[in-house]
This record gives sequence, structure tokens and C-alpha cells, in this order.
Amino acid sequence: MEGSNPALVSGVVKAVLFDIDNTLFPSNDFAELARRNAITAMIGAGLTADADEVYNKLCKVIGRYGPNYPKHFNALLKELGVKTNPKIIAAGIFAYHQAKRGISPYADVPKTIMHLRKRGYRICVASQGRALKQWDKLIRLGLHNMFHEVFVTPRKSKRFYRSILKKLKLNPREVMMVGDNIETDIKPARQLGIITVLVAPKHSMKGADYTVKNIGELPRIMERL
Amino acid sequence: MEGSNPALVSGVVKAVLFDIDNTLFPSNDFAELARRNAITAMIGAGLTADADEVYNKLCKVIGRYGPNYPKHFNALLKELGVKTNPKIIAAGIFAYHQAKRGISPYADVPKTIMHLRKRGYRICVASQGRALKQWDKLIRLGLHNMFHEVFVTPRKSKRFYRSILKKLKLNPREVMMVGDNIETDIKPARQLGIITVLVAPKHSMKGADYTVKNIGELPRIMERL
Repeated sequence: MEGSNPALVSGVVKAVLFDIDNTLFPSNDFAELARRNAITAMIGAGLTADADEVYNKLCKVIGRYGPNYPKHFNALLKELGVKTNPKIIAAGIFAYHQAKRGISPYADVPKTIMHLRKRGYRICVASQGRALKQWDKLIRLGLHNMFHEVFVTPRKSKRFYRSILKKLKLNPREVMMVGDNIETDIKPARQLGIITVLVAPKHSMKGADYTVKNIGELPRIMERL
Repeated sequence: MEGSNPALVSGVVKAVLFDIDNTLFPSNDFAELARRNAITAMIGAGLTADADEVYNKLCKVIGRYGPNYPKHFNALLKELGVKTNPKIIAAGIFAYHQAKRGISPYADVPKTIMHLRKRGYRICVASQGRALKQWDKLIRLGLHNMFHEVFVTPRKSKRFYRSILKKLKLNPREVMMVGDNIETDIKPARQLGIITVLVAPKHSMKGADYTVKNIGELPRIMERL
């Protein structure tokens, strides 16, 4: 890991934490694409059902079992009243991963991260989920070598952000958290005094210190601090 | 599933069963490629170790836990005395699958299967392993729509081949089994009276009714029956 150069850091912020899903890349868009791709393949492999009905049932199944359950497609066939069938399930999994592996970062993300690194900030990930899955996303996004530190927790809480401050040996006002989710990215971080930036590409929302439409606006915020 | 046309079947054989690994594609070659690719990526992600030493330890770990154990790379790091690290493990898994997803059938396989189908034979898979994993291989090989039936068992035995005869409603002499493994593909099938063909691309081995270097030789054997 490289050290940051404190001499170059403008203002008080020394480290920037980034959420991954819907902050570094359009996770929801890809999730929908991958689900629809899987359903097309399952119908191609012999599943007799209406694609939109299957999509709604798949969303229901994922909602019920959570995103990390390993057998969504088995549960889906059960939900559809179809006997389990390895050809159909394998076709779905393959097509799902084909779509998912094509993930790309939001256009401004790589250049903004590299720009902030050059300016001397410590660039970190603060993400919720399973460490292996989140690292896999960073690898597929081609961002895995751009971060000084990657922090992953099962659940974002004040405790999680406090542990990051401790590991980085920084005060809250020296850290900026960037994310799309008010409840997990903004509230607990802001309560500790961390400077928060909400990424809201499609909607206007309140609750953070700053709100941006995309990551490319960050350098200008840094300059104003 | 299409039915076969009995009028076109030459001689007595009506169905041909194919093993998958090292029969339809060079599984061992791809396994070595994928393991070496994974190790290169893990070293790139920060693992400090000699690639050949890591390769030998990985083979040892896979031998110990079996091919379907889901945490080979965790066990590998433990074996190497390295603390578990999601970046290194995710890099290994990603590179492993990148190599594995590139599998292709032996050159003669698709055209021979299509030729035999045209001649009226029922073309089936008789494979050992997990159904989902074997279907995934057929999909990646682009062969998944070429088979009339796919039979997968955790362990090939006389009982497995007997259940196939029952499902196909055929006598042993009406069925041909094609595979590379004497113990699992040839012996139990031959004991039931199934006509056996050993695929031995690199070595000369005995124990089957026929031995071929590649699948492309099958039509000539059919003609002689």
C-alpha cells in the first residue's frame, strides 16, 4: 500500500471512503440486466413461463432469501411450481454471470479516483456485504489496485465507521464518506462527524453534507472545503 | 427431446452414451491452466510465494478436499501459512473462472455428435459429478442442446448404467458407452454387456471393446458393428 502525501492534501480531509454498489457502478441496472438475461436463458433451456412473471417471482425470491442466498434459481422453480431441473438452473446461472461479469464503473469514477490519489488523499472502500463478493466486484470493475484500503462489513453502523477512523488514525473531520444510501452510507457516518457526500444520479435527496449527481464532482467539493 | 429414427440405425446399437471430462473436452489440461492462472493472479494480488510451490500445494489441497469443496483457496492460504485475505482469494477465483470458462470440445466432438444424431442414434451423456456443474460444462462447451438425454450420478456404478438402460428401454447390446476412464466408464458398463469404447488420446490402454484416439473414429466403429 502506498502512503498518502499530507503536504498535497487540500483543506482538512485526508481520506475519502467510497461505497461500491450504485456509487462506483450502476449495480441496480446490472442486477436487472443479469436477472432478465438469466430468465431468457432458462426459457431457452426449456422453462415454460412468461418472462415478466418469472422476473417478478425472481425479485420476490431474492427479497425473501436475501442477495447472498446460493440457491435463488432452485427457489424460483419451486415458486413457479416447476420440478427442479439442473439444465434450466445451470443455463440461468451461466447467463446471469455472463451479464454480471460485464460490469463497468460509472464513467467518471476511475479518473476521479486517480486524480484524488495524485492530490494525496488516501482512497478507501467502505462497503457492506461479503468481503469476497465485494472484492470480486472491484476486480471486475478494474478498480482493485486503486484503493489504499478496502473495508467490508456485514452491516454498516457507527461502530464500522468508528473502526475505520481508528485504523486510518484520523479524526472524523479528516474523512469523507461517499455513497448512495442515506441509511447506511450517510446517517451513521454523519453522526460521528464524518463529512458525507450523497451520490444521487437520478433523484434529489437530502440528509448529507453534500449531494452530487456523479463522482466527477468530488474534486470541486474538495477545493471548497 | 427429439426421438431417434430406428430405421436409420445401423446394426444393433441404438444409443451412445458419452462421458464428459477428458472425453468431450481436455478437462485435465484446462484444470492445470485454470490453477496456474489463479496462482498468477493471487501473486499479482499480493501473495508472496513461489508459483510452482503454490501449484503443488493447491493440487495437494484439491486432492485432500475433493474437486467440489467450495473453499480450496482458503485452504491453500492456510497450507501456505498465510493469513486469509479476501483480495487474494477473490483474485484467484476470478482468474480461475476466467480460464475455466474458455473450455472448448475436442475438435471432432461437435461434428461427430451431429453426424451420429443424423444417423438416428440417441445421443446421451453419462457423467459423474454434480448435475449443475456438469450441465454448466455442457453449456460452456456449446453442446447442451445436442443431447437427447443427460444422466449425471455422484458415482458411476453398474447400478447407474442399469438405471440408464431402464430409462432408455434398451438392452445392453443396444447401447454404447464412450469414455476415458477404465474404472468408471468401461468396467461397470462392460460387465452389464454394454458395448464400450475407450478414448485414449495420449496413451494406449486395454480393457474396452474398442479403443480410439478421438471421438471422430466412432462412425467407422458403428459401421463395423
